[in-house]
Amino acid sequence: MTETCTYPIAHLHEFVRRVFMHLGVPKADAHQAADVLAAADLRGIDSHGVARLRMYYDMFQIGRINPTPQPTIVRELPGTATVDGDNGLGLVVGPWANRVAMDKADQVGSGWVSVCHTNHFGIAGFYVLEALKRDLIGFAMTNATKLVAPLWGTERMLGTNPIATAFPGLEEPPIVIDMASSTVAYGKIEIARRKQAAIPEGWAIDADGNSTTNPDALIEGGAQLPLGSDYAHGGHKGYCLATMVDVLTSVLSGANWGPFAPPFALRQETPGRSVGKGIGHCFGALRIDGFIDPDEFKRQIDDWIRTFRQTKPAPGTNGPLIPGDPERHAEAVRRTEGVPLLLPVVDNLRFLAKETGIPFE
Amino acid sequence: MTETCTYPIAHLHEFVRRVFMHLGVPKADAHQAADVLAAADLRGIDSHGVARLRMYYDMFQIGRINPTPQPTIVRELPGTATVDGDNGLGLVVGPWANRVAMDKADQVGSGWVSVCHTNHFGIAGFYVLEALKRDLIGFAMTNATKLVAPLWGTERMLGTNPIATAFPGLEEPPIVIDMASSTVAYGKIEIARRKQAAIPEGWAIDADGNSTTNPDALIEGGAQLPLGSDYAHGGHKGYCLATMVDVLTSVLSGANWGPFAPPFALRQETPGRSVGKGIGHCFGALRIDGFIDPDEFKRQIDDWIRTFRQTKPAPGTNGPLIPGDPERHAEAVRRTEGVPLLLPVVDNLRFLAKETGIPFE
Repeated sequence: MTETCTYPIAHLHEFVRRVFMHLGVPKADAHQAADVLAAADLRGIDSHGVARLRMYYDMFQIGRINPTPQPTIVRELPGTATVDGDNGLGLVVGPWANRVAMDKADQVGSGWVSVCHTNHFGIAGFYVLEALKRDLIGFAMTNATKLVAPLWGTERMLGTNPIATAFPGLEEPPIVIDMASSTVAYGKIEIARRKQAAIPEGWAIDADGNSTTNPDALIEGGAQLPLGSDYAHGGHKGYCLATMVDVLTSVLSGANWGPFAPPFALRQETPGRSVGKGIGHCFGALRIDGFIDPDEFKRQIDDWIRTFRQTKPAPGTNGPLIPGDPERHAEAVRRTEGVPLLLPVVDNLRFLAKETGIPFE
Repeated sequence: MTETCTYPIAHLHEFVRRVFMHLGVPKADAHQAADVLAAADLRGIDSHGVARLRMYYDMFQIGRINPTPQPTIVRELPGTATVDGDNGLGLVVGPWANRVAMDKADQVGSGWVSVCHTNHFGIAGFYVLEALKRDLIGFAMTNATKLVAPLWGTERMLGTNPIATAFPGLEEPPIVIDMASSTVAYGKIEIARRKQAAIPEGWAIDADGNSTTNPDALIEGGAQLPLGSDYAHGGHKGYCLATMVDVLTSVLSGANWGPFAPPFALRQETPGRSVGKGIGHCFGALRIDGFIDPDEFKRQIDDWIRTFRQTKPAPGTNGPLIPGDPERHAEAVRRTEGVPLLLPVVDNLRFLAKETGIPFE
């Protein structure tokens, strides 16, 4: 059993907001950024919540992130835009650009926004949940520091490049999809390493391109594999998905694509070449009533969910989940019982409390 | 070595066109449908070309497909539409609806069209290649007869639900992505069955939901697995992709979603319930110049392609391919040397020649 300390979400949100303000981020932006990190902690995506605050802090300290960005639309049509994030926090630039996409969808039915000159934006799922509040189907993608090899490659060339979308039900909770295009999240490999445990075949290769079950071999110069792992199981498809995300987020916006995406953490290698500005995101939004009566759509989604819940279970399982179930269950528990944090994460927050003078406990 | 006969693509195109016309399809529509099937045969996607003509023929013969559809826009905004395909050939309705999406993108920058009351539309890649001709980034998806189990399910609930998109280069050929959301194409399992060969673990489950390497076990009541295969390797992600395609194509348009998608071939089971009209497609289009100067975009795509071609190869490989390479190579060969067809496919075409009086050889 791993040791944890548990904190109310409001407590974590407040601490994050104050740390960002200490770093020069305006109050409203700091609040927005805290909302995005809190969404990750609530939904059980522990790698993307307050566990990352120290990394954001370090990047601010060395001047890599602009605390007072003025995002701008540098090119647009009624249903498209490119946003320059002015090197702001992705947690601030992302929500800003997502609103542009949603406003455009409100106007003409569909809005797509590609974003350059930005930084890591938290969980992709946050953005599509925002779209649901406006009766829109949202899409969110981002590229990220290289970690994944293309099928038949030995080098890290792509990020874990996630895709998210969500569909509202009427009486049922929404279908929420938020998935990396790699076989697994990097966090799962870090957990195995901490436990000195082997990882399954198909997750990673070592620095020579050979399949490995040793998490150290990945971390020391190896690479993650794309969803599908090998050719026989569709590893080319995960590579295709990562490529799609890379182009829509970063080639389309003028950001750094592929292996040139700048690092998120100090310990990561800085690419030798720059082909654009910052990393890239892409947001899409579709008005449901541009296609179908929204209530009819939601009734059908309810029916879809109930139909799939009745699928005959595979042996040894309770049957299929609906996308978004695990995160919704986590949120229900954590809203009342608090967010459990691993001790190394707590230590990082205590370090930040000491550095900034903002009380943590 | 499997025996084949080889035919010039023009010969196959002409035969397909005349068979569709014999079935009452107007000349322009028959030509369009032949274009879509020919694209599959040229690009080496043998399962989706003339190999399917017999199935289309059978469906026409029993009145399941309308030879003279009048597709209509039943709801729209400047950047969205729902199209009712009037139960026409997907090979005719698909290109019609794709043009609506592209026209909307021309007008406002992004156009998204969901289509109900349609039938199988051939290869998804055809539609995004059409978008490239108009300097648009296209997206194409379709649902299909159930064949794939959701992760942790034992029943067929979803089709192989493909996604396609393409990005143009300036001097380099385009990146073309066209992938099913299942681990493998159904055709690969049929090939293994014909050879009495085992299939890899991770492709399929038997009727009891257990992993199987016997292709017969899949065909006799089993199911294919989603991309990722099992939970450890991201099978929930393939299930999420198939879900996204199912909702965007079929819930959004009012078509039959999930297990209720009507069958494509006579031997397939007819669902006990109907929740909409026909199957569903979804087409998207984005104007590149709504985001970035198109020449700059294409130069960056060239750079992307050249960068990825230089990836250090994995042991025993020649290094990563660029998405679309295999299909482009097939097309280069087949345009000059002709399309090799397996003898059972040739037999089907001879059968159709006899039935219709249209000469095949």
